Amino acid sequence: MLHNYPNIENIKIAHELIKPFIHRTPVLKSNLINEIAGCEIYFKCENFQKVGAFKFRGATHAILTLSEDEKRNGVATHSSGNHAAALALAARMNGIKAYIVMPNNSPEVKKKAVAGYGAEITYCQPTLAARESTLETIVNKTGATMVHPYNNYKVICGQGTAAIELLEEKPYLDVVVAPVGGGGLLSGTAIASKGVNSNIKVIAAEPEYANDAYQSFKQKKFVPSLKPNTIADGLLTSLGDKTFEIILDKVDDIYTVSEVQIIEAMRLIWERMKIIIEPSSAVALAGVLANKDFFKNKKVGIIISGGNVELSKLGDLFK
Amino acid sequence: MLHNYPNIENIKIAHELIKPFIHRTPVLKSNLINEIAGCEIYFKCENFQKVGAFKFRGATHAILTLSEDEKRNGVATHSSGNHAAALALAARMNGIKAYIVMPNNSPEVKKKAVAGYGAEITYCQPTLAARESTLETIVNKTGATMVHPYNNYKVICGQGTAAIELLEEKPYLDVVVAPVGGGGLLSGTAIASKGVNSNIKVIAAEPEYANDAYQSFKQKKFVPSLKPNTIADGLLTSLGDKTFEIILDKVDDIYTVSEVQIIEAMRLIWERMKIIIEPSSAVALAGVLANKDFFKNKKVGIIISGGNVELSKLGDLFK
Repeated sequence: MLHNYPNIENIKIAHELIKPFIHRTPVLKSNLINEIAGCEIYFKCENFQKVGAFKFRGATHAILTLSEDEKRNGVATHSSGNHAAALALAARMNGIKAYIVMPNNSPEVKKKAVAGYGAEITYCQPTLAARESTLETIVNKTGATMVHPYNNYKVICGQGTAAIELLEEKPYLDVVVAPVGGGGLLSGTAIASKGVNSNIKVIAAEPEYANDAYQSFKQKKFVPSLKPNTIADGLLTSLGDKTFEIILDKVDDIYTVSEVQIIEAMRLIWERMKIIIEPSSAVALAGVLANKDFFKNKKVGIIISGGNVELSKLGDLFK
Repeated sequence: MLHNYPNIENIKIAHELIKPFIHRTPVLKSNLINEIAGCEIYFKCENFQKVGAFKFRGATHAILTLSEDEKRNGVATHSSGNHAAALALAARMNGIKAYIVMPNNSPEVKKKAVAGYGAEITYCQPTLAARESTLETIVNKTGATMVHPYNNYKVICGQGTAAIELLEEKPYLDVVVAPVGGGGLLSGTAIASKGVNSNIKVIAAEPEYANDAYQSFKQKKFVPSLKPNTIADGLLTSLGDKTFEIILDKVDDIYTVSEVQIIEAMRLIWERMKIIIEPSSAVALAGVLANKDFFKNKKVGIIISGGNVELSKLGDLFK
């Protein structure tokens, strides 16, 4: 089950399964932002999700669909960010062991969060090679199931449940916009949105300085993320083969935005809506504001991906 | 009407009157903050109110209760903060002229907001004397009605409507906590809460370095705010004679909190709830966290007064 390319039914089943464990996050709007944007925007606020990000949906789904044998051996992943915290909490809520490999330069606040959820952390050098080899050693020793942060159909189905909820409340949307990093949120969103209504346009937004998904999409061949450099630190990763296939199939277009546009969009949401979103979440609104002609007078859903920000770094952000 | 000490009926009438103009703000809770605090807290989120603060309630009520003659001549006030923006917007929504006296050192963002709402701004030297004399000149010339930011029964009734909404949703609260500056929010909250249920305790929280309400309350005589110095810049003002009388009558206690406690409470709300509140709003939670024995296992309502923060100053805040 779910070893194949998922469809809307898989996402609906995932939604029923994870419902008791997740928050149903609110859908918010701002008249002032609508005036500025020239369209009608509905924000699906996954910054209010458990662990502060949509990642908790995919991690929960991956854990709930383990076999009993797999549950006994636990789950494992390498991550310095929201996926680590999401998997750790989802595991704890289900009485399952979580092994998390974290680069030793991860922010203290993330290390603390993951440890606080009772996961077993192994620190390694901050390189992809060290992360992967450390994880392999742990998986070999423990028999834990590896849960990839995005290139995993169960995770993708979990992430798609945010769009399901958004479209339950606002079925008349013309466009749904999501940010793209590894592509888990985007591919789940695309399958869900097109499955609900094939006329809905699905647009991705990506930082100019981490535009591997844009390049891959336009060239129709995989282009890795090389030296990405953006304030939107949740969007640094390359697509996976599974997410890339879905994105090529289902996504209508990818827009890129500058760092200045990301910060301006983030400031707008903070100031006008009084909610805390992380820079990666602002990329979608930045994409709308940079393409007003396309969005003009449309009903637009935006997935706000998360709200985890290091407060001590804010001074540099809003100078 | 409303030239006398108000009661719960006055506040309920005010609520019906202003309902079509205000946002009904959400009541939020955080399991994590409840664990830390050892009690069950419900946050009434006036940071999501129009103009980003509860002040819009009182200003709207003051405007809606003007006579037709008074409406023709407009309203006037002096303020560098949320009350100016609130009165300007409430006036514009009702087709009434607003004259706002602002000290010339007011933050640019506040000047812009007030101007954006179409108010006529007169700048003056940043002293209380200059503000009052400039306002007097304008009132004499235009016949506008002066709307004091807090020492005004109509304004007090408007501010009390937030507690009415909170108690409609959570009628079983044991305690309601509000911050105190000039006392408009606190006195409205106290009349409303005691009116709904005389067993509800009403507690105020105030910065240690602006503790004039605490001093006045304990000594049972008016003590002005002398050189207040706190990050909670909405709480710098002294009580008025009307608010002081109500507070002496209805408030059970006033707790003071340190600057460090205010910042810690603010950080907690930002990080855990992902909502933006201004430092003045954090004072109430700080008061709860600093008095855990009193609040232990109680059901506590907290009025989050506003969410207007200068983002460029955040770096200094969360170092």
